[in-house]
Amino acid sequence: MKQITFITTGGTIEKTYNEHNGALSNQHSILSKILATLRLPGITINQRNVIFKDSLDMTDSDREIVLDIARQAMKRSDAIIILHGTDTLELTGKLLCEEIKQPKCPIIFTGAMRPYEFRDSDASQNVTEALFAAVLVEPGIYVAMHNRLLAFPGVKKDRDKLTFIKE
Amino acid sequence: MKQITFITTGGTIEKTYNEHNGALSNQHSILSKILATLRLPGITINQRNVIFKDSLDMTDSDREIVLDIARQAMKRSDAIIILHGTDTLELTGKLLCEEIKQPKCPIIFTGAMRPYEFRDSDASQNVTEALFAAVLVEPGIYVAMHNRLLAFPGVKKDRDKLTFIKE
Amino acid sequence: MKQITFITTGGTIEKTYNEHNGALSNQHSILSKILATLRLPGITINQRNVIFKDSLDMTDSDREIVLDIARQAMKRSDAIIILHGTDTLELTGKLLCEEIKQPKCPIIFTGAMRPYEFRDSDASQNVTEALFAAVLVEPGIYVAMHNRLLAFPGVKKDRDKLTFIKE
Amino acid sequence: MKQITFITTGGTIEKTYNEHNGALSNQHSILSKILATLRLPGITINQRNVIFKDSLDMTDSDREIVLDIARQAMKRSDAIIILHGTDTLELTGKLLCEEIKQPKCPIIFTGAMRPYEFRDSDASQNVTEALFAAVLVEPGIYVAMHNRLLAFPGVKKDRDKLTFIKE
Repeated sequence: MKQITFITTGGTIEKTYNEHNGALSNQHSILSKILATLRLPGITINQRNVIFKDSLDMTDSDREIVLDIARQAMKRSDAIIILHGTDTLELTGKLLCEEIKQPKCPIIFTGAMRPYEFRDSDASQNVTEALFAAVLVEPGIYVAMHNRLLAFPGVKKDRDKLTFIKE
Repeated sequence: MKQITFITTGGTIEKTYNEHNGALSNQHSILSKILATLRLPGITINQRNVIFKDSLDMTDSDREIVLDIARQAMKRSDAIIILHGTDTLELTGKLLCEEIKQPKCPIIFTGAMRPYEFRDSDASQNVTEALFAAVLVEPGIYVAMHNRLLAFPGVKKDRDKLTFIKE
Repeated sequence: MKQITFITTGGTIEKTYNEHNGALSNQHSILSKILATLRLPGITINQRNVIFKDSLDMTDSDREIVLDIARQAMKRSDAIIILHGTDTLELTGKLLCEEIKQPKCPIIFTGAMRPYEFRDSDASQNVTEALFAAVLVEPGIYVAMHNRLLAFPGVKKDRDKLTFIKE
Repeated sequence: MKQITFITTGGTIEKTYNEHNGALSNQHSILSKILATLRLPGITINQRNVIFKDSLDMTDSDREIVLDIARQAMKRSDAIIILHGTDTLELTGKLLCEEIKQPKCPIIFTGAMRPYEFRDSDASQNVTEALFAAVLVEPGIYVAMHNRLLAFPGVKKDRDKLTFIKE
């Protein structure tokens, strides 16, 4: 049974709606709701909820925390999936790529252009893809999104087409 | 075949998500998406999209427009349903109640505490109830929401429980 | 707080899928799943699961049971809603109409043309309508479905258009 | 832009409900509904609807047709995905494995334990995984389902756990 560790950091994928004030923000992780809809008989999942922020508000120190948790998780995981806001995903990916020279397992970033709570969200697709990459690919640092697997370095958000591409 | 006229004014129920900037706002009507999920063999629906605003931003002049459109629609409708933001729904309802002394048909306000685009929205329930009230009740001015039909005057939003009640 | 009693009898609305043998049949009630999606602050719901059958398989004795349970429930309910298969709903409605001359509260039949478990089911709409009728209408025996409230006697299924109509 | 060819053959994933007679059967392909919910900017999809059957009713001659279409599709596709009933998927997979010694591209079978039209179907997950495998893996013949990629020969349905495994 493969061990997959999820590290959640907030971002668009995890934004939720507050009916009292109408705000859409990062309040708690929604990952368990997505996982409850998937059939995953061959893996065991551990979840670490690290940060609840729009990724535009993530600081360098937040990214260091993600790096530390990823380093720890590598010791006992067959793969790591990081839920991340898309606006600064490439910065955190770049940091991990520079600091973890020889990843022991696949480290896969994913997120969404539309929060999971919306009917037309891409969150379920992207988490499904990240989980499938987690059991298929060689150690490395990647983004899995919109039917593409892209390896760092050189991954960036295409802000017109709202997806990730290689530079 | 009964004629039902919908007047849409925006509000929470019609807020949609912009993937480019992450904003949740009133951009266009989502009513046709809700209606496409309902089975309504006994009625014909006309739709007038009047205003696209958070109801906190509605002005007195906006409310006068809604009043005018409702007056016109009364002439050729068996019922009128007004999609409205919940924060100032009671102000528009009060205006219609004061200005239209003898409504010729039911005028039913509804809306939602969570935008239709969210999976857990109350929008479909409320529109279903408004449509059912439209074919069942006597002429008058009402709110239909959360399994309650409340007649103006004296209707207000319960901001703790996030529903409408009689004063 | 109004007391609503649901009597479930199976029928299309409650059919569920068995992944082992591919059968679609009446195994258990799905009503609680529908109710979990609705906002019902003004009512209390009691649920009696009486029969799990395709309504084509209901016997006269099954209909007598429904009649008995409805009679008991009338004593302590502000309204009764009966989930029923559409194929023989009119027979059970006719029986109740003949045997309960003066209903003390509204008794409202509903069901669906497509089981609740399907994405495009009419079940949520119909249960929402039955619940709204339950708090709005005078004592009597009715079908609530597809934006129509029809009073017994003289209600029948339109097998071409797949809805209920008055004869 | 990669060219993916879908070959649909019916099976549980494509069963749809007939409201007139209550039957759940293979009437038409539902693939386009699934694809409409996915974001697939890097691929072009061709769809060949070949058979509409429960896979228990597939004949040897049906399997030969699937083999022929797959052989043709290989010439102009970067990957082939075959939607198939799970009960005899292993027979068709075995045939392709024996007859196509050196596949020019990945040929990926998928399907579902619960038809797509049901709310809790595994169809979207499995099609998402098949599409992701289509752009990731080496030529070969596989099943993609439930977060597993399994290579023929030696793939079979686990009828207790309702998933696919290696013998």
